[in-house]
Amino acid sequence: MMDQGLKRTSQIDESAVIGKEVVIGEHVTIMAGCIIGNHVTICDGVYLDFHVIIRDYVVIGKNSYVGANCILGEYTADFFISHKKQNSFLMIGEDAIIRSGSIFYAGTKIGKKFQTGHHVTIRENTIIGDSVSVGTLSDIQGNCEIGNYVRMHSNVHIGQKSKVEDFVWIFPYVVLTNDPTPPSEELKGVVLKSFAVIATSSILLPGVIVEGDSLVAAGAVVTKNVYQGEVVGGNPAKVISHISNIKNHITGTSVYPWRYYFKRGMPWEDSDYLTWYKKISEELKKEENSKLKY
Amino acid sequence: MMDQGLKRTSQIDESAVIGKEVVIGEHVTIMAGCIIGNHVTICDGVYLDFHVIIRDYVVIGKNSYVGANCILGEYTADFFISHKKQNSFLMIGEDAIIRSGSIFYAGTKIGKKFQTGHHVTIRENTIIGDSVSVGTLSDIQGNCEIGNYVRMHSNVHIGQKSKVEDFVWIFPYVVLTNDPTPPSEELKGVVLKSFAVIATSSILLPGVIVEGDSLVAAGAVVTKNVYQGEVVGGNPAKVISHISNIKNHITGTSVYPWRYYFKRGMPWEDSDYLTWYKKISEELKKEENSKLKY
Amino acid sequence: MMDQGLKRTSQIDESAVIGKEVVIGEHVTIMAGCIIGNHVTICDGVYLDFHVIIRDYVVIGKNSYVGANCILGEYTADFFISHKKQNSFLMIGEDAIIRSGSIFYAGTKIGKKFQTGHHVTIRENTIIGDSVSVGTLSDIQGNCEIGNYVRMHSNVHIGQKSKVEDFVWIFPYVVLTNDPTPPSEELKGVVLKSFAVIATSSILLPGVIVEGDSLVAAGAVVTKNVYQGEVVGGNPAKVISHISNIKNHITGTSVYPWRYYFKRGMPWEDSDYLTWYKKISEELKKEENSKLKY
Repeated sequence: MMDQGLKRTSQIDESAVIGKEVVIGEHVTIMAGCIIGNHVTICDGVYLDFHVIIRDYVVIGKNSYVGANCILGEYTADFFISHKKQNSFLMIGEDAIIRSGSIFYAGTKIGKKFQTGHHVTIRENTIIGDSVSVGTLSDIQGNCEIGNYVRMHSNVHIGQKSKVEDFVWIFPYVVLTNDPTPPSEELKGVVLKSFAVIATSSILLPGVIVEGDSLVAAGAVVTKNVYQGEVVGGNPAKVISHISNIKNHITGTSVYPWRYYFKRGMPWEDSDYLTWYKKISEELKKEENSKLKY
Repeated sequence: MMDQGLKRTSQIDESAVIGKEVVIGEHVTIMAGCIIGNHVTICDGVYLDFHVIIRDYVVIGKNSYVGANCILGEYTADFFISHKKQNSFLMIGEDAIIRSGSIFYAGTKIGKKFQTGHHVTIRENTIIGDSVSVGTLSDIQGNCEIGNYVRMHSNVHIGQKSKVEDFVWIFPYVVLTNDPTPPSEELKGVVLKSFAVIATSSILLPGVIVEGDSLVAAGAVVTKNVYQGEVVGGNPAKVISHISNIKNHITGTSVYPWRYYFKRGMPWEDSDYLTWYKKISEELKKEENSKLKY
Repeated sequence: MMDQGLKRTSQIDESAVIGKEVVIGEHVTIMAGCIIGNHVTICDGVYLDFHVIIRDYVVIGKNSYVGANCILGEYTADFFISHKKQNSFLMIGEDAIIRSGSIFYAGTKIGKKFQTGHHVTIRENTIIGDSVSVGTLSDIQGNCEIGNYVRMHSNVHIGQKSKVEDFVWIFPYVVLTNDPTPPSEELKGVVLKSFAVIATSSILLPGVIVEGDSLVAAGAVVTKNVYQGEVVGGNPAKVISHISNIKNHITGTSVYPWRYYFKRGMPWEDSDYLTWYKKISEELKKEENSKLKY
């Protein structure tokens, strides 16, 4: 079933079922009850917990963990119409932690350091950047673009055609809708710009654009665009404040724009946002200059 | 374990565990890790994906697909009280697509062409019509009546004693409640009449009746009945418009009542609502006339 | 693998995988596909349904039922950082009914007569009292305190650092938040005092205290403390009534404070609240007196 040489340093439970054209790296662990389809690549250091199902055309990056009962490369609707298995790849970057019971469809591409909670669903044709985390029970409906360092908490629903830029925070039970006149065929995705914060159980109506450094308050029903620095709340949501008015409840000091005050898990964790931004800007400038030269 | 004649054309993985009084049709596929109880009927062309658990007294209609890790005929509360297995049937019509991780209880009856997303829960004593779809994570609590061509999106919660008529649309995170003075024993279900549209994250309070051709806006908290053609929104919900005022955001043309403008998946997909309605009415009339004659 | 003497009266499927230092009581049932780690104690009369995964250091109390595909003792974040398995215990009291697909983390302690729906997640370092029930898809985020006789319905989200006292009712899609200025490191949990009722889809903002005998109406966004006997509703929530004004919709009689009118599943089920309260108070007094004497 496999090139025996490949699994010298890997531990594969004898109950695992492994298909054709499967490449398994070094130091891979495959626990009891796993089922692996055809054309699958499992890179070095990957750990597949009990009863993981991997369908065809899946690539799992180095040192990733896949929790018990997960399904990777799940069938899209085409499978049920044509009875043929899809051959579009699910690509998962290195250092992923995918917690148990999660289901990812074929045809989606996910960057490095991806993390999920349990029972997360991610559908087809979605592009997800690096260092993104998605909480328990969240549901990304497919055909979405998600940037880098996006943080989604539990039970977030991202409708089709949504665009979420880098460093956006989305809290529990937020829904990004997409149909302006349901039911219709005219979907308009929501756009969340970099550094926007969307608090618990708020609803973003179809086509709404939320600019960066803004805060959508818990329970807001957002029917119009939200501009830089605004705090909006209520049903329907209105501007209720400016982020500069919100202070830490203990110290009374400023807390927004959050990028200047919050570090955990961010690329500026070891310094601060401005230092990081300066460094990254210079690196980008050098890259562009070097491109121009050759 | 089975009549060998029956499985001539069927493929049953050798790891599958199959109980007594099980009838398996032609061209059935049963994948690794499936566990099938007693008194189960699996009709022609059914596909049971990996690790499906089927308990006793389940009937699965022709050409249905049951996703990985699904549980069909799940134990009701009686099982934990009496330690006896139930013997009320779970009946699933033909051409169902039940996606992975879903759990259906014993004692429920589902029509043809049923479709679900992942991790859907459907409890006992519910009657579901034909061509119904239920999105990922939705939870139908039992003792409900659901008509034909009902579309529920992700994460919909249908409380006990709800009645949902034909052609109703229910969008993500909608909750149909049932207890007017919680906690109490006096449950009053919500009634959604044919052609009603219930948008994202709205809450329907106990006993509310929503008439057809109406639209409950996203985030509405509906405390009173909604009448034909009304658009209600807000917390608490008030009449905010009439459906005739809502236009397509691109073309500016009418979009409601939606049955005249939307076709996908509907029985009038190949013509239009009025043509279909005329045809169906004549057929019904003939049937009645023929009944009268004989 | 086990002391053969222990399993004389127990039925363990031959496909089950059982680790080291596992103690299994009398009349235990372990179904096909179960995987049990090390240092696990399974008390008398426990029933593990198909494909249950139990990791290390788990104790399951007498006569408990664990549904198919459940994971008990799930890895905490430390596992992914240090690659070491945790050794903090998950303790589940006797007579639990844990329905299929649920995931409980290591380091949590749960009292007697615990019940859950399906796909429930309970994270680490949470203390849960006796006779608590948690509905399908609910998500208890860890580091919480939950009292006795708490009833959570489906899809409830309990943020970290929440405190829920005895006899609290929480209805579907309620969210207890904890971050006053998201994202921040300054979490303030919500406190729900004994006998509070929190209706469907309401949101409790960080640090809010809800006193007993109060009612938070469906869809309320609660930004301030709620006092004894108040009914609050709306976005943002305001006092809209007093519980004494709410009557049964059929009989027109009082229904609140609910402890005087509702009995099912409560310790006063066979008499009434006042009789029970008198009895329990006397018992406590005797205990205190006896402590004083010795």
